[in-house]
Amino acid sequence: MRISELSRVTGVPVATVKYYLREGLVPPGRATGATQAQYDENHVARLRLARALVQVGGLSVAAARDVLGSLDATEGSLHRVLGAAHSALPPHVGEEREPTRARELASAWGWRVHPHAPALRQLENALAALADVGAPASDERLARYADLIHRIAQVDVTGVPTTSREEAATAVVIGTVLWEPVLLALRRLAQEAVSVEVLDQS
Amino acid sequence: MRISELSRVTGVPVATVKYYLREGLVPPGRATGATQAQYDENHVARLRLARALVQVGGLSVAAARDVLGSLDATEGSLHRVLGAAHSALPPHVGEEREPTRARELASAWGWRVHPHAPALRQLENALAALADVGAPASDERLARYADLIHRIAQVDVTGVPTTSREEAATAVVIGTVLWEPVLLALRRLAQEAVSVEVLDQS
Repeated sequence: MRISELSRVTGVPVATVKYYLREGLVPPGRATGATQAQYDENHVARLRLARALVQVGGLSVAAARDVLGSLDATEGSLHRVLGAAHSALPPHVGEEREPTRARELASAWGWRVHPHAPALRQLENALAALADVGAPASDERLARYADLIHRIAQVDVTGVPTTSREEAATAVVIGTVLWEPVLLALRRLAQEAVSVEVLDQS
Repeated sequence: MRISELSRVTGVPVATVKYYLREGLVPPGRATGATQAQYDENHVARLRLARALVQVGGLSVAAARDVLGSLDATEGSLHRVLGAAHSALPPHVGEEREPTRARELASAWGWRVHPHAPALRQLENALAALADVGAPASDERLARYADLIHRIAQVDVTGVPTTSREEAATAVVIGTVLWEPVLLALRRLAQEAVSVEVLDQS
């Protein structure tokens, strides 16, 4: 298909398609002339994912390019794809803080994670922020969340297709960037529902 | 205490303290002269919370002012405080999409939520984004998450102090803005741990 049809099928304006092509978020089409190219279903899928990362995930174009690049570049197991995607996905945290407590917690829960996993630093920073406002996270409360979130992760990982590496990588990116807003919205709704239930009992 | 000590105690630079005062994130001190004012422990607490919202929560100064304003303005039950805080907190979504499916889901799960709760629109938008990339969320998968997240919300609500309205409101804001990064980091770590466990079994 031509670029105009690519735009029509995906609902992404031609100017945005050209911008994403120029920035490398979508691979170039097959050249059919000096100024024309042909696109296929792979371009449609990649363009939809690029738009979702930028518009729903709130990623910068540069961050989206890194994440989409990890889909092409990663080799090997689902586990490696997960690592590559998590490293490229926000939030990005500095190197300044050693994730000592986060490592201890993961170890206490029997979670085997890479000692330099970016999520360890994210956790350490988030815990430091809580301590900083005078509302430190207790080990007990964290353990209760960890138990429930481990079960959520089992649902996550079960949902990743094992048919092809690219499909698996795409599912991991979608699972991180696009499911996070779903889960956060569910938590806010559940908080409201639980607070109503508590009111009823009091 | 003077502004210099307020800065020293909280670790927030004087220039930032002045900026937050000017923008209304922190209430003015008690004037003790033409250019001097005294601050107390309430200012310390508010300043720490303001900094955490902006630096960890990633809120704009305007959004942080709205959230902090909801702490002062809200009257009544914890349930109302929750609604006010959620409305002021990101992500903000437009009015364009009617949250039809989100309402149906909440109703199917027996969750009593306000029909105009902002989280319903957040959920609807997030679900639309998943459908848009060709990875729609099934009712079955959502129900599994909803069950686990309802239990997370029970931990959340149990942790809210009932001693005073202001403490409750502060805890709700902290629970939403500062615990969300903790829970997301835990999910990423748990995904890695579960994917290792799955590898071991295969």
